[in-house]
Amino acid sequence: MEENKIVELSSKERPLLLDCGKSLGPVKIAYTTYGNLNEQKSNAILICHALTGDQYVASQHPITKKEGWWSNVVGPNKSIDTNKFFVICPNIIGGCMGSTGPKEIDPLTQKEFGLNFPVITISDMVKAQKLLIDYLSIEKLFCVTGGSMGGMLVLEWLSKFPEYVHSAIPIATSVNHSAQNIALNELARQSIMADPNWQSGNYYETDNQPTKGLSVARMAAHISYLSKESLHQKFGRNLQDKNELDYSFKADFQIESYLRHQGISFVDRFDANSYLYITRAMDYFDITANSNGSLIEAFKDTKSKVLCISFTSDWLYPTSENKKIVKTLNALGIDVSFLEIETENGHDSFLLHEPEFFDALNGFISSTWREL
Amino acid sequence: MEENKIVELSSKERPLLLDCGKSLGPVKIAYTTYGNLNEQKSNAILICHALTGDQYVASQHPITKKEGWWSNVVGPNKSIDTNKFFVICPNIIGGCMGSTGPKEIDPLTQKEFGLNFPVITISDMVKAQKLLIDYLSIEKLFCVTGGSMGGMLVLEWLSKFPEYVHSAIPIATSVNHSAQNIALNELARQSIMADPNWQSGNYYETDNQPTKGLSVARMAAHISYLSKESLHQKFGRNLQDKNELDYSFKADFQIESYLRHQGISFVDRFDANSYLYITRAMDYFDITANSNGSLIEAFKDTKSKVLCISFTSDWLYPTSENKKIVKTLNALGIDVSFLEIETENGHDSFLLHEPEFFDALNGFISSTWREL
Repeated sequence: MEENKIVELSSKERPLLLDCGKSLGPVKIAYTTYGNLNEQKSNAILICHALTGDQYVASQHPITKKEGWWSNVVGPNKSIDTNKFFVICPNIIGGCMGSTGPKEIDPLTQKEFGLNFPVITISDMVKAQKLLIDYLSIEKLFCVTGGSMGGMLVLEWLSKFPEYVHSAIPIATSVNHSAQNIALNELARQSIMADPNWQSGNYYETDNQPTKGLSVARMAAHISYLSKESLHQKFGRNLQDKNELDYSFKADFQIESYLRHQGISFVDRFDANSYLYITRAMDYFDITANSNGSLIEAFKDTKSKVLCISFTSDWLYPTSENKKIVKTLNALGIDVSFLEIETENGHDSFLLHEPEFFDALNGFISSTWREL
Repeated sequence: MEENKIVELSSKERPLLLDCGKSLGPVKIAYTTYGNLNEQKSNAILICHALTGDQYVASQHPITKKEGWWSNVVGPNKSIDTNKFFVICPNIIGGCMGSTGPKEIDPLTQKEFGLNFPVITISDMVKAQKLLIDYLSIEKLFCVTGGSMGGMLVLEWLSKFPEYVHSAIPIATSVNHSAQNIALNELARQSIMADPNWQSGNYYETDNQPTKGLSVARMAAHISYLSKESLHQKFGRNLQDKNELDYSFKADFQIESYLRHQGISFVDRFDANSYLYITRAMDYFDITANSNGSLIEAFKDTKSKVLCISFTSDWLYPTSENKKIVKTLNALGIDVSFLEIETENGHDSFLLHEPEFFDALNGFISSTWREL
């Protein structure tokens, strides 16, 4: 059973307090669920999506008509088995698929928020998810999982709401953003803001949308999601539909054609301001922000069983970053396993066909469920 | 003795034939020389600059007023000793510091070339340099050296004009551009072309220059020139002139401020169309293009003594790429040495203070000179 819903979870009177000091209310959360919540409400799995992900984790995307971004992981008899588990995937706040974000209407002005939307954090996103979990009357999530930025939300759940999490699977993520991570996000933001159609964020009601800037931002991201080796294997120096160089600025090489396509197709489904806000939240993310830089302190109340997964060719959130999580939880005596998957597919591996990865998810979830 | 000159080296009647099938004539070359050519004309060292380099290798840059990009390498008693050697550094064709390029006047139209400039190759750049060497009546260059794209020109000299090169030092380079290299350049080009002020390349006589697009392109390049580790050590997550997050889209982090500065300061000294043409030439570069993919065949006439240098943290032109050159020359029985320098400074290492690198240059040049 699949359901798509939007709920209002806070109000003007009882708003969500944000890290920046401002508040949001009401907060809308658009989310999708799969499967059925059991009577004890013990079989809920929360999936946290990545930067450009959404709630359509295993459903056809309403705009692109493509299958869900984790359709190979979530579904009947898959690693996250919707016959057994009640899967919840909310669109993050700051996003653009129905949850409160810069392109939604500001109740104060009755116009789109644009840059009046407050700068939010990963912690704010998780606080909003917690409102949804409370609304669903779930007192303990069986598992919280997600890759990339989704993994940051998993870490935040472990740190901020440890008693609500029975188990967790952070994937290809980091306890904070490195200078290189911030640099890549800043490049994307500058590309968007350089587009005159961005109009300081006030483009919603105009005929001009910042599609070119957003498209270049997406191209930059795509380069970082793939490894040098996977780019070589997929594209190498192969020419696009020709046998000889064109001596022009057209897309001569397949890799150019691929990147242009990734850029152009992205702008139909994503909001440029959301891209600014979400990348900002990622850059601000530091799980030790409230513990004086101490990872041990940040996770001191964590009791969950944890599986941490990284991919050898991921240079965006490399194994070394993921190991920091594992070492900390180990030092705290937490039941934590670590799996580094050998692959050339780079950061994107968590979205691709990686049988060892699927098996690991399935094995951890099944055994943790049996032990419950 | 330092001299800055511009010469016209081909003519309308005897133009330079380009790989694309078109021709250029006259070809202007702007170049700088240091030191004196000896009577036998045996002490000339040709320096090939990188993508955004120029002929001001050891001289103050006329626009930025900064010292030359290789002032730490080239000069009296330095690794490339201008007391002993006659150093020549020409601006490449396609460039924007006086050599024939897209911002120069097309003799046919008496207007700037813009996108009417033909798409050139690394080989075309070297053919133009050869005209300069002929003009200077030098029959054998004592040494040809350069890093990054400059290294590609060195390889092209070795392959195309082997009898003109006594020794060569290709640095941090590659025998062709990888898919990732092409992707990064394509990102830069798309960023420039997305800027409406680019105006299909016809911006020279307008009030609007594509500075924003070029600035974002430069930011992307800078990220690729540094290693993850050097970015971490230089900037980490340090805030810029503040103690707390700003919760805005201003440059909160030092790395953001650094990148913005790199982007903004670049546009004063570089032409956006040149950036398009030169990156295109780099992407097209494949030393085996005329030898059916065979590296052995490409270097079969090479007799020069060669030192090849790479840097451990260079992910743009990693050691593995440089080793391809070494293996090939080894197989051909060429006197080739290889040095991989341990450093965290990434691709930019060849422009930075790296004593081991300076010593290697000096050692190779001195011993080769003694053996002459």
